[in-house]
Amino acid sequence: METTNGALNRKLRMALAGGGQGSFIGRVHATAAILDNRAELVAGALSSNPEKAKASAPSYDIQPDRAYGSIDELVAAETKLSADRRIDFVTVATPNHTHFPIAKAAVEAGFNVICDKPMTFDMKEAEELQKLVEKSGVVFAVSHNYTGYPLVRQVRDMVLNGELGEVQAIRSNYIQGWLRTKLEDSDQKQAKWRTDPKQSGAAGCFGDIATHAYNLGRYMTGLLPDKVSCTLKTFEKGRPLDDYGVAVIQMENGGLMTVTASQVSHGRENDAFIEVDGTKGSIQWRQEEPNVLVVRQNGEPHKLYTRNGGPYLSGISTASSRLPSGHPEAFFEAFANIYRFAYDAMAARATGEKFETKNTIYPNVYDGVEGMYFIQQCVASSKEGGAWLPLKHASARK
Amino acid sequence: METTNGALNRKLRMALAGGGQGSFIGRVHATAAILDNRAELVAGALSSNPEKAKASAPSYDIQPDRAYGSIDELVAAETKLSADRRIDFVTVATPNHTHFPIAKAAVEAGFNVICDKPMTFDMKEAEELQKLVEKSGVVFAVSHNYTGYPLVRQVRDMVLNGELGEVQAIRSNYIQGWLRTKLEDSDQKQAKWRTDPKQSGAAGCFGDIATHAYNLGRYMTGLLPDKVSCTLKTFEKGRPLDDYGVAVIQMENGGLMTVTASQVSHGRENDAFIEVDGTKGSIQWRQEEPNVLVVRQNGEPHKLYTRNGGPYLSGISTASSRLPSGHPEAFFEAFANIYRFAYDAMAARATGEKFETKNTIYPNVYDGVEGMYFIQQCVASSKEGGAWLPLKHASARK
Amino acid sequence: METTNGALNRKLRMALAGGGQGSFIGRVHATAAILDNRAELVAGALSSNPEKAKASAPSYDIQPDRAYGSIDELVAAETKLSADRRIDFVTVATPNHTHFPIAKAAVEAGFNVICDKPMTFDMKEAEELQKLVEKSGVVFAVSHNYTGYPLVRQVRDMVLNGELGEVQAIRSNYIQGWLRTKLEDSDQKQAKWRTDPKQSGAAGCFGDIATHAYNLGRYMTGLLPDKVSCTLKTFEKGRPLDDYGVAVIQMENGGLMTVTASQVSHGRENDAFIEVDGTKGSIQWRQEEPNVLVVRQNGEPHKLYTRNGGPYLSGISTASSRLPSGHPEAFFEAFANIYRFAYDAMAARATGEKFETKNTIYPNVYDGVEGMYFIQQCVASSKEGGAWLPLKHASARK
Amino acid sequence: METTNGALNRKLRMALAGGGQGSFIGRVHATAAILDNRAELVAGALSSNPEKAKASAPSYDIQPDRAYGSIDELVAAETKLSADRRIDFVTVATPNHTHFPIAKAAVEAGFNVICDKPMTFDMKEAEELQKLVEKSGVVFAVSHNYTGYPLVRQVRDMVLNGELGEVQAIRSNYIQGWLRTKLEDSDQKQAKWRTDPKQSGAAGCFGDIATHAYNLGRYMTGLLPDKVSCTLKTFEKGRPLDDYGVAVIQMENGGLMTVTASQVSHGRENDAFIEVDGTKGSIQWRQEEPNVLVVRQNGEPHKLYTRNGGPYLSGISTASSRLPSGHPEAFFEAFANIYRFAYDAMAARATGEKFETKNTIYPNVYDGVEGMYFIQQCVASSKEGGAWLPLKHASARK
Repeated sequence: METTNGALNRKLRMALAGGGQGSFIGRVHATAAILDNRAELVAGALSSNPEKAKASAPSYDIQPDRAYGSIDELVAAETKLSADRRIDFVTVATPNHTHFPIAKAAVEAGFNVICDKPMTFDMKEAEELQKLVEKSGVVFAVSHNYTGYPLVRQVRDMVLNGELGEVQAIRSNYIQGWLRTKLEDSDQKQAKWRTDPKQSGAAGCFGDIATHAYNLGRYMTGLLPDKVSCTLKTFEKGRPLDDYGVAVIQMENGGLMTVTASQVSHGRENDAFIEVDGTKGSIQWRQEEPNVLVVRQNGEPHKLYTRNGGPYLSGISTASSRLPSGHPEAFFEAFANIYRFAYDAMAARATGEKFETKNTIYPNVYDGVEGMYFIQQCVASSKEGGAWLPLKHASARK
Repeated sequence: METTNGALNRKLRMALAGGGQGSFIGRVHATAAILDNRAELVAGALSSNPEKAKASAPSYDIQPDRAYGSIDELVAAETKLSADRRIDFVTVATPNHTHFPIAKAAVEAGFNVICDKPMTFDMKEAEELQKLVEKSGVVFAVSHNYTGYPLVRQVRDMVLNGELGEVQAIRSNYIQGWLRTKLEDSDQKQAKWRTDPKQSGAAGCFGDIATHAYNLGRYMTGLLPDKVSCTLKTFEKGRPLDDYGVAVIQMENGGLMTVTASQVSHGRENDAFIEVDGTKGSIQWRQEEPNVLVVRQNGEPHKLYTRNGGPYLSGISTASSRLPSGHPEAFFEAFANIYRFAYDAMAARATGEKFETKNTIYPNVYDGVEGMYFIQQCVASSKEGGAWLPLKHASARK
Repeated sequence: METTNGALNRKLRMALAGGGQGSFIGRVHATAAILDNRAELVAGALSSNPEKAKASAPSYDIQPDRAYGSIDELVAAETKLSADRRIDFVTVATPNHTHFPIAKAAVEAGFNVICDKPMTFDMKEAEELQKLVEKSGVVFAVSHNYTGYPLVRQVRDMVLNGELGEVQAIRSNYIQGWLRTKLEDSDQKQAKWRTDPKQSGAAGCFGDIATHAYNLGRYMTGLLPDKVSCTLKTFEKGRPLDDYGVAVIQMENGGLMTVTASQVSHGRENDAFIEVDGTKGSIQWRQEEPNVLVVRQNGEPHKLYTRNGGPYLSGISTASSRLPSGHPEAFFEAFANIYRFAYDAMAARATGEKFETKNTIYPNVYDGVEGMYFIQQCVASSKEGGAWLPLKHASARK
Repeated sequence: METTNGALNRKLRMALAGGGQGSFIGRVHATAAILDNRAELVAGALSSNPEKAKASAPSYDIQPDRAYGSIDELVAAETKLSADRRIDFVTVATPNHTHFPIAKAAVEAGFNVICDKPMTFDMKEAEELQKLVEKSGVVFAVSHNYTGYPLVRQVRDMVLNGELGEVQAIRSNYIQGWLRTKLEDSDQKQAKWRTDPKQSGAAGCFGDIATHAYNLGRYMTGLLPDKVSCTLKTFEKGRPLDDYGVAVIQMENGGLMTVTASQVSHGRENDAFIEVDGTKGSIQWRQEEPNVLVVRQNGEPHKLYTRNGGPYLSGISTASSRLPSGHPEAFFEAFANIYRFAYDAMAARATGEKFETKNTIYPNVYDGVEGMYFIQQCVASSKEGGAWLPLKHASARK
């Protein structure tokens, strides 16, 4: 809760697309976006159903005249508003198949965007979106929120600083259990769209969570992939998309990455868990206990780095922290860290300063493209019986 | 982020006392108070230094005309404002010795209060404040924030439901290390006032954190104390207040509670850790890993209850949760839960409905009195070489 | 420490092959074999170097006349001894390339065998050994020692009882770091032979530890494999064998198993870690904290089963335990459990009773064959770029 | 399993007193004593019931002619045996009230003794035993077995080396749950004698396990006690001895130690847990996860020392280890470490070398005396309502 938009000297104004009743991630975005008091939620297109969109507005404290029935309506109206009222950015928190048209409309109108992941419905949309963003010059972040955890950023800095030596192996897992039964046959909105190929895209589990695991490995290490062999499974009968899978990835430097994801592991909650092995050290981090990072070196005591634990941490890691160590931070705060660093860029853009677009602290449109490429190639590899397919995308950042 | 102040149908308006530069807890209050979007921070008396008070306002997004130089100024001005602009409550987040005058001024003016702990400077103030609150009928919460954790509330409900049988033993610890050196000799504002008897009161470590540990045991179990024997230590030479101590407490039902607190244990961060033994079951909970509660019964597998983990949890525990299990919540969210349930009472008061004042989900003025009594009796017992002194206060709730 | 060889009514007599200076596993066998006082070590062929063999005998308390210079000498001499002095079994704890000739000599002479893993140098030897064992009727155990942990056996029983439903996914990992540097260039005997293809066989890391991980998954679940795709890596330059790898295994029932093993993960000690997902429940077990098993079901608290923790455990699990729960047991005791159940079979054989040879509690010659097949097919698959190769062996047990 | 009795050049010969049917600790001693193959169990007085004594012998592999009906018989017969057959030491593993007469008989006959704890029935016996030991010059160890854990010894060495600075606070807990119900009303032999003042002595829980917790704090830190205030509770109605209690101990150097013990905490197994705070660092160790020691310093990452984890460990810690790190060791091995270092002394005595008697690695008769003094003073303090009583015994070692 700190208005530190610097030279901009005012809060950023946010519009939310998605977030109507039954939404999970819309509420998360809305909470995270204002956690530091650097933004206010002033407009919304909360549902694809215009009536529901209006009805949902009060619970977000959005005034009726800015509760729009569609993204087009929103863009049209906000564009006409005076500069001191108009929104600065749109958060896209809808089911996957509508990410692209919403983001496109916002980007083309010159609004910054925070887009949920996977970034689009398919690869074609992703690459088009990349071009649109490059053309428009807006700030574009993708909410691979786990990269917002301070100790995840710590690992990224350790790799960059050479503290782990050359990275050779990554094991990134994301294990859940909530789709163990066919929850989609009930009224559960989350289960419904996430298992529907028309809304979710080519992959289920792999689009929803393996992308996070892959992104986490890429974000932490900067290691570029070469090719992937993937095996997807649908363990819950009658489900049209995968709910389990393993991808083996050859890295350009000769290293090996494994991505494992499950939505059908009984009682497992949201267990994103990653291990990275370098020639000089190894790390281990688990999303469900995010305030601790295990760092190891042969012959030394194992070390537990704690969030905001001291001067041994990197500047970015500490800057991603709000509380003293021992006062745990968690999911919302990590999510808010995506916003925090995107806001820096938005404020810079608004005041005409330069800002980084590729090697950003927050995941960006290039990471979004990579995520879509990962999904596309994994699904294709699995269909071809685990054939090795290329995985390095031209626009991938190191 | 959800405006659910029910029939009140608007956000509550907050004023913050304290929170100027170098403050830790003021910022925490401000962040937690708006997490659910049920309140907005509109006024402040951010520092006892009027200039600093004004200067700090922008970082809280408080308009200059409502950035007051003192609580008296604040109360006078806000009282004159129209009902649709006037604040609903004052959060008191100043050093201990000013809690009372600020809270008194707010309460007497009819404003609700969220007061940091320990509630006052001494017992006399505490008992006077209790009377003032009773007379005024305002909502008064004390931020023993650890009671806001969903799984702490789960334990309270388990005890109330008899799931643990009769409680016989409580071991409540709060272990920190940050005052291992004489940090107060540096510029560290937190260390300075917390080790200064003129600002902190009769106790150091025991006032600052043992009160939390004691409150946690009392809150979880409802067990009433009978008498206490306490031994306080000052391990860092030259420090005028205790930085370590143990209190042994005989409970009215024959049970035994132990409270241990330290500020001088190397590398320990904020380790509030409690174990409760009942005739039918036992529990274990640790603030640094707040999303897990260990529940045990002889002959059974140990059970890990996870926050929002399923229908086996109590209604209040689940209602204190914002995210699905596995998406960790932490310190801010627990803090916000104190506000969440106090807001329910404030909204009720504002719309003329009845609301509970004693057996509240949030810690209240009676808990504040008990906390002060605990400090007073512990300090006195320690001075008398650990003599047993009465600990049950007339106004304690069960 | 309990002589319970039943009707046999005497201790079993053991000979040790291997275990000379610098040996690790020989000493472990010798310690585990007598833990329950059901056997005594009376003879040895402790080294392939006859002088060293003699010299090592006193440290095992073996009398000079039974400290043989070779397995042939041992077999010849022991065969001539009277039945009340002659050894009952030979433990083979030498480098891999000598397992077969030693085991063969013992088996053909009618002695029972406890053989270290991997069982032989290659597949041909393994299949021949199987035939020899079948022909001779001796008790033959392979020391996949992790199957000796009481809670591993608990999982096996839970799967057999249907408590986990149908098993669909297994993730079995074995992560070490000791070969992160080229330790084999030093005098370290363990590193030397384990990285030498002439002594170790076709695989390094995968022969040494991935076999354990694979066996653990097979033992726990009884699920039969169909085919495997494997990627092996040598991350330490100049090492002739793999030191890292991943195998993806399609199971006959449509399930998926992943085996990951590393010897180059900094600071990792002996981290055999397995997760099993069934339609009714899931489990998680870690060798470094072997006294706890995590069992989960959606909507229920997570459960921690503790070794010997109560009547909720299976009979075999409890029978594999020596101490009350909370008094931790570990590596030696698990190793001794391989012996404990093999001794039952040896005692039965000695007294002419029938005994199970295939679905044994301890890993047997068929498991040994499967382990060798796993190594062979993984190495072949990796050479063919991860091609899918058959993995089900004709003699595999369910 | 290594005969390393040095110049003695033979195994030590052991007699076991106690260990008949229903015994727990007798079997543990017998197993631990031979783990390293430095001793053999050759004689016994396994029960106070002569018939049962004889009947129990075979399960220990003791020959009938050395299965004695009483300690007197044992001492008389063994004394007459030739030096090359006669026992070297007697392990006393009987209920507490018979420790003294048995130990006395053995000591007076010149046999070394390993005595279970608490050492005697009362203080008078303890002091007499000390004198007898001093007079006879035998090796006398008391099986405070938790001091045998390698990482406990590591802490001791760290304190001795000054790595933790001056120790100021110790929190030592031992929490069990097995006596939550009146198990002694059943046939459970362990519960029966441990809750019977005639067999157990003046204290129940405090004699059985708080003595361990106290000893652990004393052993690790060498800090001398000044005085104690103790509160004992009997939570299970009708039980004649305490089953819960807290002791607050003022240390001579101004530090504070707290000992908490429970036998009535549901589901708690054998949770000996200790924290030590020094001016330069702090440690945390837990018996149920004995292969890890947490070491902390402000501003540094927390460190996990692992058993046998590397050159950062002390020589004694490493010498108390049998397996590489990651291959867990546990209760039996720690118990065997008491024997291992006592054997060194016994071998020295047998060959006429000098050996340390006071500052031994293993707990000795002086620690036994201190343990009894702790029990006596705690019980007395509790009876006087927690009065401060002296706790430093003249013969305490630093």
